[in-house]
Parts: sequence; C-alpha cells; structure tokens
Amino acid sequence: MNKFLELALAGVQQLVPYVPGKPVEELQRELGLSEVIKLASNENPLGTGTKVAAAIQATLPELTRYPDGSGFALKTALSDKLAVLPEQITLGNGSSEILELVMRTFVTPEHEIVFSQHAFALYPILTQAVGATARVVPAKDFGHDLTAMLAAVTDKTRVVFIANPNNPTGTLLAADALEQFVSALPSRVLCVLDEAYHEFVAPAVRTESLHWPQRYPNLIVTRTFSKAYGLAGLRIGYGVSSLEVADLLNRVRQPFNSNMLALAAAEAALGDTEYLAETLAANNAGMAQLTAAFKILDLPWIPSSGNFVSVDMKQAAMPLYQALLQKGVIVRPVANYEMPNHLRVSIGTERENRIFIDALTQVLQGV
Amino acid sequence: MNKFLELALAGVQQLVPYVPGKPVEELQRELGLSEVIKLASNENPLGTGTKVAAAIQATLPELTRYPDGSGFALKTALSDKLAVLPEQITLGNGSSEILELVMRTFVTPEHEIVFSQHAFALYPILTQAVGATARVVPAKDFGHDLTAMLAAVTDKTRVVFIANPNNPTGTLLAADALEQFVSALPSRVLCVLDEAYHEFVAPAVRTESLHWPQRYPNLIVTRTFSKAYGLAGLRIGYGVSSLEVADLLNRVRQPFNSNMLALAAAEAALGDTEYLAETLAANNAGMAQLTAAFKILDLPWIPSSGNFVSVDMKQAAMPLYQALLQKGVIVRPVANYEMPNHLRVSIGTERENRIFIDALTQVLQGV
Repeated sequence: MNKFLELALAGVQQLVPYVPGKPVEELQRELGLSEVIKLASNENPLGTGTKVAAAIQATLPELTRYPDGSGFALKTALSDKLAVLPEQITLGNGSSEILELVMRTFVTPEHEIVFSQHAFALYPILTQAVGATARVVPAKDFGHDLTAMLAAVTDKTRVVFIANPNNPTGTLLAADALEQFVSALPSRVLCVLDEAYHEFVAPAVRTESLHWPQRYPNLIVTRTFSKAYGLAGLRIGYGVSSLEVADLLNRVRQPFNSNMLALAAAEAALGDTEYLAETLAANNAGMAQLTAAFKILDLPWIPSSGNFVSVDMKQAAMPLYQALLQKGVIVRPVANYEMPNHLRVSIGTERENRIFIDALTQVLQGV
Repeated sequence: MNKFLELALAGVQQLVPYVPGKPVEELQRELGLSEVIKLASNENPLGTGTKVAAAIQATLPELTRYPDGSGFALKTALSDKLAVLPEQITLGNGSSEILELVMRTFVTPEHEIVFSQHAFALYPILTQAVGATARVVPAKDFGHDLTAMLAAVTDKTRVVFIANPNNPTGTLLAADALEQFVSALPSRVLCVLDEAYHEFVAPAVRTESLHWPQRYPNLIVTRTFSKAYGLAGLRIGYGVSSLEVADLLNRVRQPFNSNMLALAAAEAALGDTEYLAETLAANNAGMAQLTAAFKILDLPWIPSSGNFVSVDMKQAAMPLYQALLQKGVIVRPVANYEMPNHLRVSIGTERENRIFIDALTQVLQGV
C-alpha cells in the first residue's frame, strides 16, 4: 500500500496512465526477433527528413544553451504559413501538452469535461488528473455525435474535446457541422479542437479552422509535428487560439517547455513541402493497400481520414494482436476504447504494410 | 481586459511568468552587435560534448518514432551510476518539470509551500500556478535558515523547497544540518531538495543525498543535465524519491515528456567523465578569475558552490546591467530575488570572463 497515495490529489489517486504502443526494442528483447514491424503509434514511416536532419546538425553546437523560451523563430514561421498572429500560438512539448495546459489553466474538480466515446485516450486521463468529471457522449457510427455532445453541456462544463479526424476511429467531421457546434457553445466553455491528423485529410473535405478563434475566442485548435511532419521523437506541437487564451496558456507553461532541437526541426519541417507531399502520397497508397487486403479478408474497416485505420476482426481482437506480436508485427489493440473487436493499424511503408497483411492472413488462418 | 481571465484558476489569474536571461540573438538584433557574451543563465561554457553529439547523430534516423516513454536506457544508466533503483527515478522535461509534477500531484489551494528568501524564482511561480500559499522564510547570510524554515511548517504545509547549492546566491548547506532538517519534517510534508548545481560542489563538502529517500520517503532529490552536463537546450532532468512518490509522479507526467534526443544525449553525457572533469576544472579556474577581479574592484561577492557568483555592486545594479548590455555582455540582474544591488554572473570561458571583467571595469569607471 502506497502511504503517499492519500496525500495525492483525489483525481491523481484514481489515475491510470496512458499505455503507449509497445516499443520495437522491447519486443525484440522479449522474442529475440531480428526484425520487428511497428504499426502501432501512427508514426511517419518515411524516416527523418533531410532538412530536419540538417537543421539539427546546425543546432548541435548550441545545446549547452537554453532554448529560446519565446519560440520566436518557429512562431514566426508558423504565423507566416498559417496566417495567424504569433501571439495566438502556444508551443508545447507535443500537442498533448497544450491539451494539458488548457486543463491546468481553466479546470478545477468542480468542472465537467465533455468528449466522445471512442475519442483519444488522453482526454479521460487529463480529466482525471485534475479531478474533473468526464461526460462521455455515445458515438454515432464511431464518430462524434455533435448534437448529443451539445446537449451534454451543462452549467458545470468547462472544456469540450473534439478530435478531427478522431483517433482511433479516423472519422471526420464536416466543416459546417463543426462550426455550427462551436458557434452554439456558450462562450464560457472552451472547445479544444484536436487536429493532430489534420494534414492527412483530403483537401476537398479538410476543415480550415485556424481563422475560427478570431470569431470564437473560446476555441483552441491544436496541431502537432509528430505525425505528418515526422517529429514524434522530438515532442513539439502547438495551439492556435484567441490572444486572451494564448496569454493564459503561455503563463502556465514552463519557460523552456519546448526543446531547442524540436524548435529548429519543426521550423525546418514546416519548410520541407517535398517531405510532406511524399508523406501524404505514401499514406494514400498505403491506405489503399491495406483496405484492399481487408476487403479480400472480408474484414470491415472504419473509413479513415488519418494515417491509420481501425479494422473489425469480427472476433475478440486481443488474441490476434498477441499472435501478430509473435510474428514480429506490432499493431494497436483498442479494447480500452470500447472497441474490443478492432485493431488499429498505422499506415506503414509498402513493405511494412505487406508484411503486416501476410502476418494477419496467416494469423486468421491459424498458421 | 482579458475576458477569459475570470475563467482561469485563481492562482493562474495572478501568475507572472518566469523571466529567462536575455537571449544572445535578441541582444544582437537590438544593438546590431557582432559578438555578445552571455553569462546570464548558468549554462556550460564548454559547448556540446563530442559524445553527446555522436549519440544524437546515431539517434537522428529514429526521430519519426515516439521516445521510449519508460526511459528504460537512461534510467538503467542512472541507476547504475547513482546506486538507486530505476523505479525510484522520475524523468522530466528538465528538472523544473519534476518540481512542477510534485505540485500537481500533491498540492491544492488549501496548502502552504515553504521556501527561502532569495531561493530559485520558480518556487513561487509553481506555488502560484496551483493557487497554494507561499511561506517565504527570511534568509540568513543569503542562505537557507533551516531552523526558521522548520518553524514555518504548519498543519497546512505540503511541500518544502530547498535548493542546495542555492540559485542565485550559490550558498551551500552542510550535509548533517540538511539531514537533521529532513528527519525533523513531518512525514506528510514533502521535501524537494533541488540539486541542480550539485556536481559543481567541491567533493569534500558535497552532500550525498540520493540514499536518503530510502530513510525519508517524503524526500525528493532533483537533478538536471542542464548545467554540469551541458544539455540545457535539450531539457532533461530527474527526480530520485521513494518508490511510492515516484509511482505517483510517473502517473501524472505525460507519457512522452522526455524527448528521444534528450534521453540519448543524457545517457551519453553521463558516461562522458572527461567532459564533466573539464567542466569542473574550467569552473574552478573561472571562479578564481572572477573573484580575483572582484577583489581588485573592491566588490564583495557571496561565496558560491555553483557555476555562477552573485556580486554586490554597492549601488543599484540595474543601470550597470543595462550598461553591460550596451557593451554586448549579458549577466543577470537579481532585483526580483530581493537583491537589487547584486548581479549574478555565470562562470564562462577564460576569454568570456575576461571580456566581462573588462566591460564591468569600464562601466564602473563610467566609460
């Protein structure tokens, strides 16, 4: 029995940490495998871009210095590219830190937090950490039911989380429905629009939400360099909000929350349009490759706008996940998302996808 | 008027962020100077070590992957080197994050936080951010008055911060006095012993505190790679505590709070005994160089066990700080530490120290 548990905040006492995807090295250690394919964490399969590597090289001699706590260069680059003011931006140690900052800035144990069933696992964890009450709204066709979510807002609601596209389902909300929802929210309710997978959405159906905070100052749009920009290891993301909200989030963040190499790499990644184009092309090709295989295997999948796809195994998925591990393939079980029959598969390279498909085919045949 | 201010937590509403040392690039931009000497943030003047650079090089291809959230390799290396269990360690985005995690895990607005006058500026900020009440205990000879601090502990006290050596004064507490203090604290009061400058202390007077948490499970010792190990830009530090406290801190931290390059670089830095030895030698030489100059200039200084020294200008220091800026030399005014006549100077290279001494001499002569 942990005698310090009773000294911890009530929310912390009940806190069960996020479980990351199994690391490649861990599985290699456990099974003595020479090659392991990891399609479990929605990472970019293309590897580190050359412009990012060059930017890090150039910054290496400076590591003994503290990072620029104001993030001047990266904020300027983001401001230019996204047509928002630098002062609207909050930089974070991953966009997950921006979500956390919102909670720490605005939420007390008296508040309620609204989010959808099957939504990103960090929302309930962040809610628990500050001791607030989660209002989980049943999903509609695996996606957000905005009408029901609006109805779940009460006088106690302080934050609504919306992931668009959603992880792990990949479902996408239409721009007009989303804006209608945001405009209908009381101005005292902060809306966090988590766009971690924004760049993967087909341009024709992509919501361009970054100018919304000017009209809806309670809206915070978050994005990350971890996915399409390939910088998951470096931890860098950002929020775009009204000046008022950004001012408060920037008060609460640590002065050097974004590290120097992440700042330099993100700026380089933002300018590397070629890497981004290759990423999106590889993702589209890989999505077609995987879903074609699912069709042959007669496995229904949830149409996804992200760099991953959740596929219905039509049976308990955990034993299949374990069997795939034995073959050196790591995917993501999503039973913790109330989807016990699904596996979430990140889009890999053509070769990685093929190895996964072969392994899955064998596993389903009991080989 | 920020209309979201009233939605923010009471503590956040009053929050005034930490002011970092002025960045070199900023002063260069402002004054059009080609060379700027920065002795303002207690950074390592030797530049990035070759082993650290090599470790980062080797890790570059992996940046698209998430870091190992468990920090397995670095915790193993720390465990071996420090003779503590891996499970006693909490890794942080700088040791400042460990301080923050303690507050977020254990402190509510009902609690009081005890620390010393002239202690590290982050303690009052972290106290304010969670809406707790600061009990600032008057210093004795610029250092911690442990007797008075113990007397300041009440039923409401939840955390005591002690910096040893202290920043910005450089004062050092003796091991026996410190252990006596820790042993006298009620077990429900967490003691954070901030040892950011530990490695700079002369071995004969250095407190070896890492085995204390086994006896005093309410003690959390924090250390950083930002100073002696030269990794300020990468943001990596750690706490060593009882298993019980470490378990709780690890629940509250974000799953990927420490970035991949920081983990790799810290592991390399830990093994680079040559770089550490050079750092300490340069620090000792630089301290002698600076204090010899202060003696000639007839300026009293506070004897320091860190990689910095606070010197008494015998007049308001801010105009001298400004005059030094004009000459391209950045040091740290410490009026916000209730030391309006002092300047804190980080130990630089022999050349940087010389440029600072020349500039200070000129400034004092009104040149």
